[in-house]
Amino acid sequence: VAAEVRLALTGFGNVGQGLAQLLEAHSEEYERRYGVRLLLSGVADRGGAAVASDGLDPGDLLHAKRVSGTVAAASGGEANLAGETFLDRSGADILVEGASTNFTDAEPGWSYAQSAVQREMDVVLASKGALVLHFDRLMAMAGRKRRRVLFSGTIGAPLPILELADRVLVGVRILALEGIVNATTNQILTVMADGASYEEGVRAAQQAGVAESDPTLDVDGWDAAAKAVILARSLFNASLRLDDVRREGIRGIGPADLAGARSRGETYKLVTRIWRDGSLVLAAVAPECRPLNDILGRLRGQEMGVVFKTDLLGDVTSTVQDTGGVPTALTVLRDVINLARERGWAR
Amino acid sequence: VAAEVRLALTGFGNVGQGLAQLLEAHSEEYERRYGVRLLLSGVADRGGAAVASDGLDPGDLLHAKRVSGTVAAASGGEANLAGETFLDRSGADILVEGASTNFTDAEPGWSYAQSAVQREMDVVLASKGALVLHFDRLMAMAGRKRRRVLFSGTIGAPLPILELADRVLVGVRILALEGIVNATTNQILTVMADGASYEEGVRAAQQAGVAESDPTLDVDGWDAAAKAVILARSLFNASLRLDDVRREGIRGIGPADLAGARSRGETYKLVTRIWRDGSLVLAAVAPECRPLNDILGRLRGQEMGVVFKTDLLGDVTSTVQDTGGVPTALTVLRDVINLARERGWAR
Repeated sequence: VAAEVRLALTGFGNVGQGLAQLLEAHSEEYERRYGVRLLLSGVADRGGAAVASDGLDPGDLLHAKRVSGTVAAASGGEANLAGETFLDRSGADILVEGASTNFTDAEPGWSYAQSAVQREMDVVLASKGALVLHFDRLMAMAGRKRRRVLFSGTIGAPLPILELADRVLVGVRILALEGIVNATTNQILTVMADGASYEEGVRAAQQAGVAESDPTLDVDGWDAAAKAVILARSLFNASLRLDDVRREGIRGIGPADLAGARSRGETYKLVTRIWRDGSLVLAAVAPECRPLNDILGRLRGQEMGVVFKTDLLGDVTSTVQDTGGVPTALTVLRDVINLARERGWAR
Repeated sequence: VAAEVRLALTGFGNVGQGLAQLLEAHSEEYERRYGVRLLLSGVADRGGAAVASDGLDPGDLLHAKRVSGTVAAASGGEANLAGETFLDRSGADILVEGASTNFTDAEPGWSYAQSAVQREMDVVLASKGALVLHFDRLMAMAGRKRRRVLFSGTIGAPLPILELADRVLVGVRILALEGIVNATTNQILTVMADGASYEEGVRAAQQAGVAESDPTLDVDGWDAAAKAVILARSLFNASLRLDDVRREGIRGIGPADLAGARSRGETYKLVTRIWRDGSLVLAAVAPECRPLNDILGRLRGQEMGVVFKTDLLGDVTSTVQDTGGVPTALTVLRDVINLARERGWAR
């Protein structure tokens, strides 16, 4: 008999709905494969929440969202349910925090994460705000309660950056990291490298479903810079703030730049870098001209990649093609399963 | 205070000596970083063994091996100590099996692995024989005793093939795998691609310390085929035998082939493939002509790489440059630490 693990999900946008779709389609497969039954015991969005200790029906949640715009319209739903009351009534083992984020107060994610840890829930974060603003406080709080906070989905999902650092680079020192961790800008630059204008590139990314209607956070490098802050903290033990990341977006790159690069066998990529300079750790997000056969230069469209510069293994790289429509939801699933394994609930 | 974890090491060749060097140089760092103190409580080679429940001195073991050819000459050493008596007297928590291997009876590794599991030790394998010949029996035996058997070091170390499959491709189906998992042949082919003859390529690989004096196991594809058997069993749940792997080595490739490929922007690589054909799982090791900007075609020298073809994430890749001299020993260390984490001994 499989252990049951209850998930409380805050936010029901792309990531939350993607997770519900995965559970709707595959939860029996997951039970066979990992020996654990994943139940959505609570889901909250801006319109309210739904709770059921024996598990909400993912299909019903998706239907209510589509038809009524909120999970409050689903079976078990209430219009004014939120916050600590929601967490308590969900009876969850793990909070999956995926509400849309901001870098001003990181709400509602920051409050949800704190409340969950106080209730001795483990936490899987898919939104970046709480990590960018309060990384140290959140981890200290979790440490005192012996709770785990996983967050693979926040830094270039589904790239295995944290898993490689934690499970593979054992006994190895990371000297520097460089990567393409923002799919939207890579999609835009790829279309532009094939001859399109910036505006056409943005439209293509929007049509592909990777760019927001206002693409500022992506094209001006804010999203990549936020990821750099989280990576600097978790892999380099360096407390950078968002303002500490040198940041240059892709708006300054025109079709002529890309055509010129192509004639030299190169192309522009928005590269996120973290490196050591003596005892300092520095981070930057900026366009770079890379050879087309380079490990990052060859990545097209929504592909992403990371290069770890290490002392004992040289360059260790990983790339993900990400042709699926649910990469961040899959990354959340992987954090949930890996967390359940640590707890002895899953295999 | 750090937990102490005792290791019994069988075989003291490249891998064993590499592990001893790592522990000699870095065990305090490992203790700080992972909260665990790794002790070599027993080491056996063909000349005998040394045991000490409070830990042998890695420097003394390396000195004895260099001067006398066996760890039996080290402090705590005995010429006739081996087998079950050795394991009992080591008092180890984990067997690290790294004795040289064969694919006929897989001894002495197979006996050591069985004896360790019977004694409720966990097992880290760096030698392939027991896995190639007895994968299912070993895992069933370990399952009955609730022991873990890790073996990242046997399949293209230090590539993170098993870690990616286990920790990252959660909820993802592996459709096929292709990789360069043998460093010796890649080194030879790289030198040949730059204009050298096969014989010069072999000599260069021998001088770089990656090729044996008799390179047959590598150049005829036996090593890669053995890795394919282990990968097919662990990632595709398919019980292939060594004879089931279609195998073609690199002896048939001449400088003219490589020059012709170069003129087309391509090069030859020894590629290991595993794929599904209906309900069948097939495996092959053979030279392939790959574009120079391809993820595998661009790997030079001792670099290795793997491409997972998946259903939900498209191609997921990893490459390792492996400039260090101790890649397999590092991979054994990572299995030891990850195993200690599973047991709650390390963080």
